[in-house]
Amino acid sequence: MSPPSPALSLEDERSLVDATIRYCWAIDGRDFDALADVFTDDAVVQYGFVDPIQGLAEIQAYVAKILTPLDASQHLVTNHQSGRDADGVHSRCYFQAQHVRKGSDGGANYIVAGIYRDRWSETPAGWRIRERVLEVLWTEGNAAVIGVPSGR
Amino acid sequence: MSPPSPALSLEDERSLVDATIRYCWAIDGRDFDALADVFTDDAVVQYGFVDPIQGLAEIQAYVAKILTPLDASQHLVTNHQSGRDADGVHSRCYFQAQHVRKGSDGGANYIVAGIYRDRWSETPAGWRIRERVLEVLWTEGNAAVIGVPSGR
Amino acid sequence: MSPPSPALSLEDERSLVDATIRYCWAIDGRDFDALADVFTDDAVVQYGFVDPIQGLAEIQAYVAKILTPLDASQHLVTNHQSGRDADGVHSRCYFQAQHVRKGSDGGANYIVAGIYRDRWSETPAGWRIRERVLEVLWTEGNAAVIGVPSGR
Repeated sequence: MSPPSPALSLEDERSLVDATIRYCWAIDGRDFDALADVFTDDAVVQYGFVDPIQGLAEIQAYVAKILTPLDASQHLVTNHQSGRDADGVHSRCYFQAQHVRKGSDGGANYIVAGIYRDRWSETPAGWRIRERVLEVLWTEGNAAVIGVPSGR
Repeated sequence: MSPPSPALSLEDERSLVDATIRYCWAIDGRDFDALADVFTDDAVVQYGFVDPIQGLAEIQAYVAKILTPLDASQHLVTNHQSGRDADGVHSRCYFQAQHVRKGSDGGANYIVAGIYRDRWSETPAGWRIRERVLEVLWTEGNAAVIGVPSGR
Repeated sequence: MSPPSPALSLEDERSLVDATIRYCWAIDGRDFDALADVFTDDAVVQYGFVDPIQGLAEIQAYVAKILTPLDASQHLVTNHQSGRDADGVHSRCYFQAQHVRKGSDGGANYIVAGIYRDRWSETPAGWRIRERVLEVLWTEGNAAVIGVPSGR
């Protein structure tokens, strides 16, 4: 796997990172409307453990279903890279997503961490993700927090 | 919660991120004098679990009290956003702070993670935080590391 | 410990951060050839718990030996700072490295986190690390994942 290349302009690179970060604040803040500033209307997201999800409204509904029952979540993104190839502009970054349930039993946390691989479209409103593929590298904690039976 | 806007200049944005990072190196390196390059003299920090702390000297004393007994700490900051509104320049970022005690019992770690929400003043020496509000999203590990009775 | 200074140009700073990130993607993707775009041919890496490792080929061999047996790894880097002094260009950042073994027993994770302190050389191909010193601040999980007997 070679590093993405050739490099984008500093301004374009910054726009991609900003949108990648905007995604995190939007979902962790349960501001699912703000995902319209992240994805194209016909974007496809492949979370890996469910069928691909197509369309902004479907993505919003899916993320809301997973995160709304939680007491908190925090999606850290780091190690951003971007480039351009025959299929256009792409980027990848690492994510580490904490999912939190509080409760009288002391609560529980569940981390899912891995890679976001994104394909981008430039729209009149700015760069938007048209395809995101999530790759899980590791998990830690209690999977029951996000409704998955316990056990790694 | 909408994303902060309008965007700052790239140079100003970089200065804010740099100062946010400088805070982490300063406290993790126990170089509390360096906090003078982070906060205004009359800055207020709201850690949430204690009364607001006002003034650089008080902030330095408080952070020193919490961190000096530890064998190590590491404050990661990511997901930086900044903007400008009627009250001036603001930013927010995610933090994940590890607190470490070593010892013959094997030692223990305690993570506190959440959001720093900062208000900034431009001074002759550069951008300084005039107000920081810390919001805890999750914790993990042994709270006794920072002197809090065990239990989440 | 004072913050690195004076600041590099934005372009140089970006090149250093990019190479620091490239290291992570290279080793986590088991693309050890790509380390030629990170280190000088005669680079020295001090991991701390083994003798200093000198030369690109030796670094590649060492990292391959540690990481190839794992099912996954993820090296997050954040809090980047850089500067210039009498010995040239230097930088430091925080890292948090997850090491993952999967298996019928449920698998195990082992985090090693700390500081990368780097010295750089400008080559015709761009900035390369000529010296890296790794400082471990904390660990978490099962050290047997990387072949170290259990226990912190």
